[in-house]
This record gives sequence, structure tokens and C-alpha cells, in this order.
Amino acid sequence: MTVRSEPDLPREFDAVVPNALTVRLGVDLPIVQAPMAGSSGVDLAVAVARAGGLGSLPAAMLTAEQLVEQVDEFRRGANAAINVNFFCHHEPQVSRRLLEEWSDSLARFDRELGVDRAAVRTTPRNPFDEDACRLVERCRPEVVSFHFGLPDPKFVERVRATGAVVMSSATTVAEAVWLEAHGCDVVIAQGAEAGGHRGMFLTEDVAAQPGTIALMPRVVDAVDLPVIAAGGIADGRGIAAGLVLGASAVQIGTAYLLCPEALTTPVHRLALARGNADDTVVTNVFTGRPARGRRNRLIDELGPLSQDAPPFPTAAAAVAPLRAAAEARGSGDFSPLWSGQGGVPTADVPASDLTRRFMLELDAALANAAGRPA
Amino acid sequence: MTVRSEPDLPREFDAVVPNALTVRLGVDLPIVQAPMAGSSGVDLAVAVARAGGLGSLPAAMLTAEQLVEQVDEFRRGANAAINVNFFCHHEPQVSRRLLEEWSDSLARFDRELGVDRAAVRTTPRNPFDEDACRLVERCRPEVVSFHFGLPDPKFVERVRATGAVVMSSATTVAEAVWLEAHGCDVVIAQGAEAGGHRGMFLTEDVAAQPGTIALMPRVVDAVDLPVIAAGGIADGRGIAAGLVLGASAVQIGTAYLLCPEALTTPVHRLALARGNADDTVVTNVFTGRPARGRRNRLIDELGPLSQDAPPFPTAAAAVAPLRAAAEARGSGDFSPLWSGQGGVPTADVPASDLTRRFMLELDAALANAAGRPA
Repeated sequence: MTVRSEPDLPREFDAVVPNALTVRLGVDLPIVQAPMAGSSGVDLAVAVARAGGLGSLPAAMLTAEQLVEQVDEFRRGANAAINVNFFCHHEPQVSRRLLEEWSDSLARFDRELGVDRAAVRTTPRNPFDEDACRLVERCRPEVVSFHFGLPDPKFVERVRATGAVVMSSATTVAEAVWLEAHGCDVVIAQGAEAGGHRGMFLTEDVAAQPGTIALMPRVVDAVDLPVIAAGGIADGRGIAAGLVLGASAVQIGTAYLLCPEALTTPVHRLALARGNADDTVVTNVFTGRPARGRRNRLIDELGPLSQDAPPFPTAAAAVAPLRAAAEARGSGDFSPLWSGQGGVPTADVPASDLTRRFMLELDAALANAAGRPA
Repeated sequence: MTVRSEPDLPREFDAVVPNALTVRLGVDLPIVQAPMAGSSGVDLAVAVARAGGLGSLPAAMLTAEQLVEQVDEFRRGANAAINVNFFCHHEPQVSRRLLEEWSDSLARFDRELGVDRAAVRTTPRNPFDEDACRLVERCRPEVVSFHFGLPDPKFVERVRATGAVVMSSATTVAEAVWLEAHGCDVVIAQGAEAGGHRGMFLTEDVAAQPGTIALMPRVVDAVDLPVIAAGGIADGRGIAAGLVLGASAVQIGTAYLLCPEALTTPVHRLALARGNADDTVVTNVFTGRPARGRRNRLIDELGPLSQDAPPFPTAAAAVAPLRAAAEARGSGDFSPLWSGQGGVPTADVPASDLTRRFMLELDAALANAAGRPA
């Protein structure tokens, strides 16, 4: 791969040591911007890519037309590799009764918020199917990443045949080993600290999900693939930790959510800026799958983990009208306020500046630990 | 403090950079052996101290005579600082009825195991009281560490008056700030990965406990004290991660449990050697307080978190006879198999060799990340 990012930022960081993964991805910095469906789009991906990291486009909540348009826009904005991310769940068979019961359990908030359930449509979460595979073959992203395992083997083969690097998240050693055996090129070790959906696909044991510092070395020892560290990494110290744990790069999500280029909603921004990173929990009440976010009213009243939530992604439909009505009043009581357990940098720092700051902090962290002047 | 550890191991590790904490503790290596009540005693403390780390004696389950004897034995074995660790809970007022209900809920296992509840005595968990404080004044350990916050201010003052360095665990930023305000000299940032009892004392929200990689930098930024990283650190890569996150030292527990010097029971050793570090959960069924260990039958049948468990440490009494009977048959089904989420090194490596191996791995991890030859 010969694409290089734009030289619009200084690149001389002591700590940047090219490795097999960064060379293969054609990126200067060992930083992957996490794809965050609903909260990040092409602007954030372009900004991180232009700064030397790997930009990511979350495809799960986009139409085919939107995705093609965003990839084109990315190509115009950055001469760099792009990671397109897909959810690879299977659409569940859910009884009408289960959905109605879930909807009924939420209806107690309707009057308070003046909600008319019939009037709200939900954005679907697309699984990775024939149409999605054709989109990959058409757009030819340099990197295709999956969440919740991998799609059917025939699709993995077709994605690989485009030349794309295939990545997916592992939350346990067993998942990392499974991904290696099923054609994955790069494992993202997603520690329990990570914000948003847990990538877990071979286990449902939320309580046993290991943290990044424990998971990373065990995954590195268990597979022969490059490993990306994810979860709780929010500044250069965290990046340094990921690298010394054996990562070829780190994935950063929450820390980019207050950048002007992110699509983060106002209530979400407010929660991240004002809230306390020690107040996040893993909840399934927003979508049916466990995901980490800041505690709010819906989590406190129904969760954090509810037996009644129908399977992903069907739980989201009943929450959507409450969320829309509450957000219209400036309230995040019913919104997924996805957040990892790491800190959140100051608001409104452009993503390129933030990326550069991360690298300076990384230099300093490694130098301090080694007793060298930073 | 002028004590130095014995020079019976080579000390030239590139990565060993003295800092204010290691100088104050008089240790050569930035490694604290975690005090593990019931699983570690004077032999492990001496071995780690002689290798250059800080050895720790858990006092919570010892009589006064035993503690005095162990401190004396440590002094004979190592010319080094010692950390004596205390639990500082308050003995709870628990109704007889609550205890009987808890005991009854466990009685369903009695017949299977042939248990005679009347015949078994429980080892108490001592709070930090006047007697304990006098012991500190008599034994004069260089370091006194607490778990579950700090004891009454008058005791903290008296401990400090002996010249001891006072340490305690924080599981959130709020707890770290509280410890600094209440006379603590060193904060141990205990990430969610840690084995054994959670040190949490200002929160009961087990689900929100942050992992080490997320907690450490936020604690370092929030307090002016030296910070020790704990939780999920099981080899030199983990030590390197702790240091680049801003720690002055790291605390290692589980990784020492298979050393010959540890007091780890046979069923516990077997579980650690054969089990899967991705199968630990935080449970309160053994003592009434949340603690991390490998999943086993008691956890699966009653927990992991039971509303019925009476407050720490009273829950332990009813479990004791089941544990004793099962262990006599070689079964760990009813034993607390405390374990962090990190890996467990090969069995039977002496603690001094293991400590030295950690330091070589630390050198290599920092060198690799910085692109230098190891």
C-alpha cells in the first residue's frame, strides 16, 4: 500500500517507530480513530487521517448512497488509507409480542415527554450482507473492520480479495484466537474500559470482560497477528501503555468525541464535558447489546442490564421516540451517552491538533519512564 | 529511610529509574508485592524484598502474636523496608436473623459435603483498632497500607507519627482525592482488573469500577501524591504500562500466587494454573464485600453478587465449613479463588527469579516501544 497521509502536520515524534502494521496501513502514527456510528463521520476521519492516523467511517447506520458519498468525500479530503467499519450481527427473529412488551415497558415515560410513538422512525443498524459486500468491492477501502465477530466466510473472502486489511474486535483471548482462525488480519483487543458496544461475540458474560492492561499481553501471546489496543486510551500516556503492552497501534474513540469534527449531539457533548468518567456502565437498554456509556435516567430506571430488552438492534426502536423528545428539550435522559472510562480532553480542540498533542504526550511518557529528557 | 535490600541479585536494569517513592521506600525496584491475606506470608515478602521490591505482610487475618513474629522473621530475612497491610472496615452490626438466613441459604450444600456447621471456626478479619495501632507502634514497619479507605483519623495520625509511609487503595478519582485529603502519603490506584477485594469505600457501584489504563492517568492528574498502579499487571509489559501511565511503582499480586513462597492452597493453585484469566468475576458471596476471583460453583449458584450476603466480613462464617469440606476432597467449588484478570506465570518459579524476570521484560517492553535494542 503506497498511500501516504498529507504532510500538513509535523511528523517528527521520537516515539514513532514504524511497525509491520503501520507500514501495511500506510499511516505515520500508531493511532486508529475509532468508528463511532452516529457520532463520527467523514470530517473526523479526514482530520485524523490528515494528521497521520487511520481515519474510520462507521457504515452501520448509513445507507449505501451515504457510504459511497462519504468514501468519495474522504478520498477528496485526504490522500490516505480509510477504514470502513461494519456491524456483522445477524438480524434476529423477534416476536411481535416481545417487541410490544419492551415498548410497553417504556410507554410510562410517553406522557411526561409528550411522545407520539407512531411518528418516529428508527435508523436501522445494517448487518453485513450481499449489498454491503458489494459496496466494499465498489469503494475498495484499504481497511475493513467488523464489530461482533466476522460476517459469513464467503463475505470475508470477498473482502480480502479486494486487498483490504480485515480487522475485528476481540474482548477475550478466545475471541482473538477465533478471529485469527477465521481470516482476520488484525485483532483489536477491546478492553472493558471501551465506550460504545462491546465487540463480544463468543461470550455473553459482561461481568468477566477483562480490562485492556490485562487483555492485551494475553492476546499478543495467543495470536500471530498484529494487535491494536482499545479501551480507556484517552491521551499519550494511554497510547504509550498500549504500545509497551505489545500493541502495533491503539484505537481511540471517546477522546475524539468533543472535537468540532465529531457528530456528537449537544446532550452527549454536555454529558462528556460535565460528567465523571467513573460513572460509566455497560448497558443493553438502548440497543439490546451491551455497550458502555455514562449513567443516565433510562439506565438507572431500566438497567443497566435488562432481561426485557429484545435482541440487538431491535431494542432501539422503542427508545427512539423518548430520545428524540428528550433531546428536543435539551435532555440526555433517554440518549445513549456512549463513553469509555478514560478522560475526555478539553472540548473543541480540532482532531488534528488533538492527535498531535497525543503524540507529544506519548513521547514524554516513554521518555519519563526510561529516565530520558522528554 | 536508609534500609536497603540485600545485594543477592543483579540490579542493573536499564529501566530502573529511581523516583521520589522508591527512594523514600528504600527499594531498588518499582515493584510492590501485593499483600494477600490468606495467600501470602513472610516467605513471599522476604523473597520479593531480597530481590529489590517492597515486600508486604497482610495483617488482617493474623493474631497480634503472629504479626509480631512475622515482622521479626522478615527483619531476620531481609535488610529492607516492610509494608504491613490492614483492612480498615468497621465491624458491622448484623442481626442474628440475617446471618441465619445466609447460613440457611448455604445449608443446601451441607448434606452433599457432609458438613457439620457447629464444628468449624472462621478466621476473623480484624479491623484497624487500638490494638492494631499499638502493634504498628511496636513493630514500626516502614510502610503501613490500608484497604477500604483509612482508619479513624486519630489512628492515621499515630501511624504517621511512627514515621511510616501511609498507603491506601483508590478505585475511583473521588477516592484518590479523599485519601489525599485524609493524610494518605501514597495512593494505590486499583483498577477493576485486580484480584481479591476491591478497595472501594466511597462507592458501591461495582459495575462502574474503571480499569487500570483508564483510572491511572486520571488519578495522577487529580492528586499530588505518588501513585502505585495495581490491577491486571502480571509481567514486565504490565509494569511498563503502569510506569508510562504515570505510576511511581506497580503492585503485583496474582502473578506471585504460584511461587513456592506463597501460601496459596492447592485448589487455588490448580484453578490459577488450569483456568482461564477471562473467567474471573467480582463476587461478594465469600466475605460480603466485592472481590475478584475465578468463577466456581458457589459464585455460579449464589452470585456473583448476592443481595443476601451479610456485610463484610460476616458472610465468610457460613461459607467456611463448605470450603473446608470441599478442599478436603480436593475441590475448590466453595473456595475464594482470588485472581486478577492478568496472566499467571508458570508455576513454581521462585519469587526472586520471577521479580528479576519482570524487570528484564520491563526493559524489553520500554526498549521495543522506543525502537531501541532491548
